[in-house]
Amino acid sequence: MDSVMTPPAFAFGGGGLDRADHVRADPDRLASLMNWRARLLKLDGIDPVIAPDGGLQWGTLADADPEAEMVFLGLADDGRGCFAEVTPRIVGSVAPPNPRLWAAMSTLSAADLAIYGGARSLVDWHARHRFCAMCSAPTRLVKGGWQRLCTNELCKAEHYPRVDPVTIMTVECDGELLLGRQPRFPPRRYSALAGFVEPGEGLEDAVRREVLEEAGVKVGEVRYVASQPWPFPSSLMIACHAYATDKALTIDTTELDDAHWFTREEVRHAMTGAEDAAFIAPPPFAIAHHLLKWWLAQ
Amino acid sequence: MDSVMTPPAFAFGGGGLDRADHVRADPDRLASLMNWRARLLKLDGIDPVIAPDGGLQWGTLADADPEAEMVFLGLADDGRGCFAEVTPRIVGSVAPPNPRLWAAMSTLSAADLAIYGGARSLVDWHARHRFCAMCSAPTRLVKGGWQRLCTNELCKAEHYPRVDPVTIMTVECDGELLLGRQPRFPPRRYSALAGFVEPGEGLEDAVRREVLEEAGVKVGEVRYVASQPWPFPSSLMIACHAYATDKALTIDTTELDDAHWFTREEVRHAMTGAEDAAFIAPPPFAIAHHLLKWWLAQ
Repeated sequence: MDSVMTPPAFAFGGGGLDRADHVRADPDRLASLMNWRARLLKLDGIDPVIAPDGGLQWGTLADADPEAEMVFLGLADDGRGCFAEVTPRIVGSVAPPNPRLWAAMSTLSAADLAIYGGARSLVDWHARHRFCAMCSAPTRLVKGGWQRLCTNELCKAEHYPRVDPVTIMTVECDGELLLGRQPRFPPRRYSALAGFVEPGEGLEDAVRREVLEEAGVKVGEVRYVASQPWPFPSSLMIACHAYATDKALTIDTTELDDAHWFTREEVRHAMTGAEDAAFIAPPPFAIAHHLLKWWLAQ
Repeated sequence: MDSVMTPPAFAFGGGGLDRADHVRADPDRLASLMNWRARLLKLDGIDPVIAPDGGLQWGTLADADPEAEMVFLGLADDGRGCFAEVTPRIVGSVAPPNPRLWAAMSTLSAADLAIYGGARSLVDWHARHRFCAMCSAPTRLVKGGWQRLCTNELCKAEHYPRVDPVTIMTVECDGELLLGRQPRFPPRRYSALAGFVEPGEGLEDAVRREVLEEAGVKVGEVRYVASQPWPFPSSLMIACHAYATDKALTIDTTELDDAHWFTREEVRHAMTGAEDAAFIAPPPFAIAHHLLKWWLAQ
């Protein structure tokens, strides 16, 4: 189980549409898909709109602003093109998900969550990349929204949607598990340490650096466990498990409120959601939850 | 071996300097490091300058343009700050590495390669992000070069260096290995299939999609093998091994010249570099080489 990537049991992963990437580079095919049968994903800014049946709300292209840039999300099972409209101005898009958003998404199926997550990242990226970072000229959407192109004939820089890899890791020593508290967490919540992979780092380098920086713990062996797309705004969470030989902590208080070693029994009890648990475990939609579950199953 | 991340045996990985991220957010500390003892990484555009001893060439901050933006690479073992200068205009930076560049780098140690790779990605990113993608105003380097900030007081958008996750994968069926030829490859070279992870995808999703798109092969189980930073311009290569149950190929000729199933004996022979091998294997600096080696060792 540990080396084999687990099936898409995580929110936002697994895929919901045929991405049909050959369509993106084929303007005629793309235009022919933008017909009266095409589906428009309804969004409230970049938040989802939930249909009466609890799924994503879809409309037709007639519902879109005729001037709006359109992103091609992929093909539905019946061959219809699925699209989303780029909202001109989005505020607070990089904020982490709030309880209201999670409540709204709680009725969505795995496939709907995957469609929505991909659309959210993409629409948000377009809204925040209307100008060329190289020359400052306006950019325009091309290839069905999987690229933006600088409109300055002397520049013509190509820009691609971002995916930011993040390592998220549990650390084990003497059968206990190291978890941390970020300042923004609700009271008593502890979860896996995490941080963005930086230019010039492999995954293992990033895991070692983050654990050393945040908790002062030196890590030996590192294992890959699982991954999850996380559309806030466009992270790729890569979950790892690391082994340390010394439990002494030096906590970076600019990053963490606290870090603590928990026994297997404390982690097991917290994962039941018991009120008298030593801490409140990360919620099921986060890959950290599955990392703890994976560790308990070892 | 397969689930445990291998030690940094790959070019550009493993880390060469203490990144000292607490220094980045501390302007006083950063300024105090920019003294006469500080080291300046010499670059030819974004290519490395090789010292007479075969290592990276370093100078002092006195060698830099006083107007140039400076990137803080980290601390050397002796505590000295290491910096690189942002070259105002870099051409052709996204081109894949050429034989001349590889020859120049052939004398560098693993630590030097890691330092150079990280610096190359970072300097290149700054050169291509002088303007705010949100509002078109000029941006300026902050936090020792680990961020750019929009200078427009009404925008103030924060921009971070990119790391683009790429899956690279061998596919196995009936004991044979699927490899492909990209049009830009030298004659007879075959290597692992590869592609960027897209917004809304987990690693396993991306592996399945790429193999289906490029070769028409449906993949079941996927395993993580290893990762490598790849500074052309700023990829994170994530090497996986996938299992298929059907060898029928439908090759996407817009992506690949060819794809082919090779026997274990053919792969083994190619990895010796023999002239009569069925194909020319990927070179040792590429993670695909290690993916083939890993498979032969199974």
